[in-house]
Amino acid sequence: MADYFIGIDGGGTSCRAALADKNGRILGRGKSGASNILTDPDTALKHIVEASSLAFAEARIEPDLSTTSAVLGLAGNNVGDAVSYVQARLPFRQSDIVSDGVIALQGAIGDEDGAIGIVGTGTVYIARHQGRLHSVAGWGFQVSDLGSGARLGQLALQESLLAYDNIHPMTGLSKAILAEFDNNPEKIVDFARLAKPGDFGRHTPKVFDFARQGDAAAIRILKTGAAGIDEALDAVNGITGTKGRLCLLGGLAPLYPEYLAERHRARLSEPLADALTGAVALAVKTYGAQAELRA
Amino acid sequence: MADYFIGIDGGGTSCRAALADKNGRILGRGKSGASNILTDPDTALKHIVEASSLAFAEARIEPDLSTTSAVLGLAGNNVGDAVSYVQARLPFRQSDIVSDGVIALQGAIGDEDGAIGIVGTGTVYIARHQGRLHSVAGWGFQVSDLGSGARLGQLALQESLLAYDNIHPMTGLSKAILAEFDNNPEKIVDFARLAKPGDFGRHTPKVFDFARQGDAAAIRILKTGAAGIDEALDAVNGITGTKGRLCLLGGLAPLYPEYLAERHRARLSEPLADALTGAVALAVKTYGAQAELRA
Repeated sequence: MADYFIGIDGGGTSCRAALADKNGRILGRGKSGASNILTDPDTALKHIVEASSLAFAEARIEPDLSTTSAVLGLAGNNVGDAVSYVQARLPFRQSDIVSDGVIALQGAIGDEDGAIGIVGTGTVYIARHQGRLHSVAGWGFQVSDLGSGARLGQLALQESLLAYDNIHPMTGLSKAILAEFDNNPEKIVDFARLAKPGDFGRHTPKVFDFARQGDAAAIRILKTGAAGIDEALDAVNGITGTKGRLCLLGGLAPLYPEYLAERHRARLSEPLADALTGAVALAVKTYGAQAELRA
Repeated sequence: MADYFIGIDGGGTSCRAALADKNGRILGRGKSGASNILTDPDTALKHIVEASSLAFAEARIEPDLSTTSAVLGLAGNNVGDAVSYVQARLPFRQSDIVSDGVIALQGAIGDEDGAIGIVGTGTVYIARHQGRLHSVAGWGFQVSDLGSGARLGQLALQESLLAYDNIHPMTGLSKAILAEFDNNPEKIVDFARLAKPGDFGRHTPKVFDFARQGDAAAIRILKTGAAGIDEALDAVNGITGTKGRLCLLGGLAPLYPEYLAERHRARLSEPLADALTGAVALAVKTYGAQAELRA
């Protein structure tokens, strides 16, 4: 019987699967619900199986996960216990759990050397040099993730309090943020004390909007963020050199380039494919040779 | 019988009381345990009474709190529920709960106009202009308190991760911090996720130590912190003008001046007295006139 390969792109809101043959040709796709292996590993497992079965169904092939090889790109993959738990319960013949960044890299730059910067609520950079992967930054907004949506939103709240206290001039951005909190700084403090990255990040679109209108505070915040990204991309270049593809991914990827240093902006290119395509390509790459041997 | 006045300086680790006569002459002092009205109001009440009674004992006067007027400077005074709870249960004839900053201001600059910057784990600025009080900044380390011990420590951890990722050069400060976390960035992330201001602040002495040795990262962090303080002091000057006493208080007060802008450094002076002295002076000032009327 034929060998099949599954790629999984799973995260906090959905789980997507792609089914491919040994040549990497995609035969079908499936989508199910959340697959956060940290917060709810059993539901994640259920949704991984469901998305995989739907991919078989779309391909009109009788699903047999026990003969299928899979690569799963899952957020939270750096927490050993969760990975072990899920790994031991996956129904595939063989499988590998990697980070969501690794499948995004594969999708964006294919098999060549190069790098991606994922610039969303968090930021992380992944480079491939002479076939070896390197991860840069991405340690969370409290002490890392400079330029991320979380950090930009946090800076915007800080800016609004500086304006409230007449430490910085009041601008449209600060006014808009204060208004959201009923012009009550205590409400900003209460919010910030418990805010998760996504909570801060929800204030970030305003920063880009006001910057576009020339708001001095918004522009200063984005320059601070962009400087953080520029420095990280310099470190990436220290690994890969300045050849090879460099892609920005994530929610802020379309918004940031105009604020970045010319040396980086000039090198940016569109990703070749998405993370799900990267996952299934990795499955074929990782397990395809073994399948050949068995054939 | 004589009128007595009590000042209380209470916080998370201790409660200090000073007893004065109507002329503000201090007759006795007492000290007891923690008086955090937010986390444990009943213990705070117990320690307020205990410290007050000890002050009477030191003065060899039979304690009668029900005929004594008090001003209490208490951390956490901005949370209304806690204040109402404690206020309703205080044994004094009359009393006022104010912030720890207000008694520190009174102690530091006396009855004149002027300002203080409290530069410790947090930062807050309190100014008195034409008799009116103004508070600037001090909204907590997540979105305020620039230059505070918490922020400096947090920046030091961030710096060590930037050095770990080759985004910034490795310096002695970053090496020392990484070594404290077994050179494991995950441990820094875990620490930072739950760190309270004091947890970050514990890394701040190292920043000053390494800056003194010429460490480029440490100096950059202190310049960032000092810029935040300079800007806040400019805002304070916007309220008070540049006349009147300006004092820095708090744990970092002796360390910061050399990093501040000359325009502020040149104006700094030593506080006239401590916060406890400020509290008892406020008690006499607030309630002394009434006592005169009753006499």
